[in-house]
Amino acid sequence: MKIVILGSGNVATHLTLALSRQHNILTVYSRNRDNAEQLANKIKTKATNSIKEIPATADIYIIAVNDDAIGTVVDDLPQLNGIVAHTAGSIPIEALNKFSNHGVFYPFQTFSKDKDIDLSNVPILIEGNNAETFQKLNDLAVSVTNKIYNVNSAQRLTLHISAVFACNFVNYFYHIAETLLKEADLPFELLLPLIDETAQKVHITSPLNAQTGPAIRNDRNTIQKHLKVLQNAGANDLADIYSKHSKEISELYRHDNPTK
Amino acid sequence: MKIVILGSGNVATHLTLALSRQHNILTVYSRNRDNAEQLANKIKTKATNSIKEIPATADIYIIAVNDDAIGTVVDDLPQLNGIVAHTAGSIPIEALNKFSNHGVFYPFQTFSKDKDIDLSNVPILIEGNNAETFQKLNDLAVSVTNKIYNVNSAQRLTLHISAVFACNFVNYFYHIAETLLKEADLPFELLLPLIDETAQKVHITSPLNAQTGPAIRNDRNTIQKHLKVLQNAGANDLADIYSKHSKEISELYRHDNPTK
Repeated sequence: MKIVILGSGNVATHLTLALSRQHNILTVYSRNRDNAEQLANKIKTKATNSIKEIPATADIYIIAVNDDAIGTVVDDLPQLNGIVAHTAGSIPIEALNKFSNHGVFYPFQTFSKDKDIDLSNVPILIEGNNAETFQKLNDLAVSVTNKIYNVNSAQRLTLHISAVFACNFVNYFYHIAETLLKEADLPFELLLPLIDETAQKVHITSPLNAQTGPAIRNDRNTIQKHLKVLQNAGANDLADIYSKHSKEISELYRHDNPTK
Repeated sequence: MKIVILGSGNVATHLTLALSRQHNILTVYSRNRDNAEQLANKIKTKATNSIKEIPATADIYIIAVNDDAIGTVVDDLPQLNGIVAHTAGSIPIEALNKFSNHGVFYPFQTFSKDKDIDLSNVPILIEGNNAETFQKLNDLAVSVTNKIYNVNSAQRLTLHISAVFACNFVNYFYHIAETLLKEADLPFELLLPLIDETAQKVHITSPLNAQTGPAIRNDRNTIQKHLKVLQNAGANDLADIYSKHSKEISELYRHDNPTK
């Protein structure tokens, strides 16, 4: 298929590299010419920072810009015969109503510029405003992944929220753990086997069943000991987080199993 | 070495199985006779629920019971010639002062009964009240893992706190994500590639550098949209958590990079 990429950030970069293997990326557009060229050069195609230079002949236009910028790009684009799809978790399909064939092509993953990702393992969530559009976006997804989900805009929004918890907040807690280890003069690498095992466990059992630690045992001695360390170190913000989530976990399991 | 295991929970089970490959486990003790027998049978050794039946000839006695129960076991044990070591993150070495040779043998991992773990990749944190004891515990650790750390009781306590954040609270957020997905009629497996990648990323870069999502971008539109979904679903507790941690992340990165 002939494809135009609009955007040059993390999602645009990873999608462009993956799609270019089987498809013809006609042009990479970005407001920032340097960024557009940098990405376009990686796959030896054209770059532009002018909406007017975007070819009208593509089969699919993929808008992979920040959520806040999607409206502007949509406004600036002319009517197009091809499919226009965005890649955002929290933007409904209706944001692209202007185009007769439109949809969503949302790769559900955390992308960093510096780290390659094998997209074949990344779920891609598809939505289309008509059957033909859906089918074409599905064909495009098949060319990069074997995990394709038909998900509507409301579901996608909830999925995005779940990702904030399971990825962004999780990574924030990795950061808190790293801060604590630094203060104790211990290397972060000590935590990696635990971090990996915590992630691996929920492949074979539910998080509810995988839980360990002082909160699920309602081990108040240990919890108090931990809170005291945090408070003595002047980390009252961390003590608050620790206390709040410990309470939530203890209550969750009391509720889950009234005999405990 | 000749070893006695005191305890039959997750840590006791995984340690017993790993140590039995190269050492002679004389006896498994547990207050609960059935539990002691169940574990002892796995490695075809003796079981007892009587402290008096514990042999006095072992080189190392490993107390792997709940933190709350360590004091009782210590009180009940007679003086011993061998080394007595506990496996707890938050109990200082001094809890074993009664014994002339004592120490800590803390495997830093989240253990579940149903899931095998390759201990060779699990950090073991050692402490000893004298050089000879330390060396013997180190030798024991070498026989199961290639990751051995010399860590004092204060450091170990902080490490345990960091594990609550990076494992227990992380797993709690996996649970929250699962709850959200269930309500949107989506399978939890959708999240697994994201969970794995979030864990993998911090192997090659710091959590601070790995962060993505609406909070680090200070994308208030998306944050507000997410909060509204949670509130409309009556999940005000989740909205509070979402709001609190989003604010913390936004502020962390404003502080981290004042130009943002």
